[in-house]
Amino acid sequence: MSTGESTSDITEGTYRALCKHGYADVTMEDIAAETDVSKSALHYHYDSKHDLLVSFFQDLLEGFTERLDAVEGETAYESLLNLIDAVLFPPDDDAPDLGFQTAVLEMKAQGPYDESFRRYLKEHEHTLREHVEDHLADGVESGEFRADLDVEASADFLVTVFNGAQTRSVAVGRPVEETRETLRAHIDSMIVADGGRK
Amino acid sequence: MSTGESTSDITEGTYRALCKHGYADVTMEDIAAETDVSKSALHYHYDSKHDLLVSFFQDLLEGFTERLDAVEGETAYESLLNLIDAVLFPPDDDAPDLGFQTAVLEMKAQGPYDESFRRYLKEHEHTLREHVEDHLADGVESGEFRADLDVEASADFLVTVFNGAQTRSVAVGRPVEETRETLRAHIDSMIVADGGRK
Repeated sequence: MSTGESTSDITEGTYRALCKHGYADVTMEDIAAETDVSKSALHYHYDSKHDLLVSFFQDLLEGFTERLDAVEGETAYESLLNLIDAVLFPPDDDAPDLGFQTAVLEMKAQGPYDESFRRYLKEHEHTLREHVEDHLADGVESGEFRADLDVEASADFLVTVFNGAQTRSVAVGRPVEETRETLRAHIDSMIVADGGRK
Repeated sequence: MSTGESTSDITEGTYRALCKHGYADVTMEDIAAETDVSKSALHYHYDSKHDLLVSFFQDLLEGFTERLDAVEGETAYESLLNLIDAVLFPPDDDAPDLGFQTAVLEMKAQGPYDESFRRYLKEHEHTLREHVEDHLADGVESGEFRADLDVEASADFLVTVFNGAQTRSVAVGRPVEETRETLRAHIDSMIVADGGRK
């Protein structure tokens, strides 16, 4: 779509509507109610709720990539921890984060049935894994991380842990903060070179 | 319910119906079609689809607990690996496993909205964590695992990894086999005592 300045309004409205109603129940009307755009204007731009959500997913991926690109730190170790925080604790402004995480989990469960969603889910994972790999490779190069670190396998494992933390947060209400602590222990033992942490 | 021998028929029929139709779309009619029980008999035993699914969840938890109880090995290390396999590779007989994993992920996404589901999701996690803790504690006692291992934190981390592997399998089709390999490396480095593995 190319509605110019209303795109971010629609993206933010979709975000709020998903937080409130969830993926399965949200309607075009719910989304319109959260924006300055009328329901008929929404229908003019998007053929269906599915189209709108796919476009929303695309915006989300761009925002996520920008957030990961912006992660920095004095050392590779610090950058890696900051990356973990950027993933596990997205900036939620004033919107209820858990509602959104729940909607994302609903969309993940659509992966086997919905090719468009799966494509974005895969891109999302790919972007995340690449960013983790970059920080790990930086640390290997600087000598902070183990010289024999399997960068790809380690990054992939961390992506699995992120997925698990997010799923448990939604399913049983387990705080992601607890994962951060265990992740740090994992990184200190498995990734950091002996005496390499500054 | 107390229908005697038809309970397992209903449980198995519900399993097959969930595999085929998913949690959101499955109907009482779909479930009846997979059993020898008529739709009206199903309605006689269960007030709603939700009631039936809660009861199904309870049966599932019992089966899961029995499967975890049956895990054994010559060493604590071997038992732990067998437990991981029992969790990541449930026996799927002739039913399509991914369909069921997807239905479970849909139900996990209901956690924040559905108290009955959340109760079983929590019990499920609790059972799993306890079994992992038992194997870890056995290994610490036998000297196979690190004497200073934080058994609770390690078990909890493994539960997070299981959740992540299952979520990724559904969302992006990533094979859980890959998680098994990285998990083994994690266990060898983080859990096994130096020279403790037989």
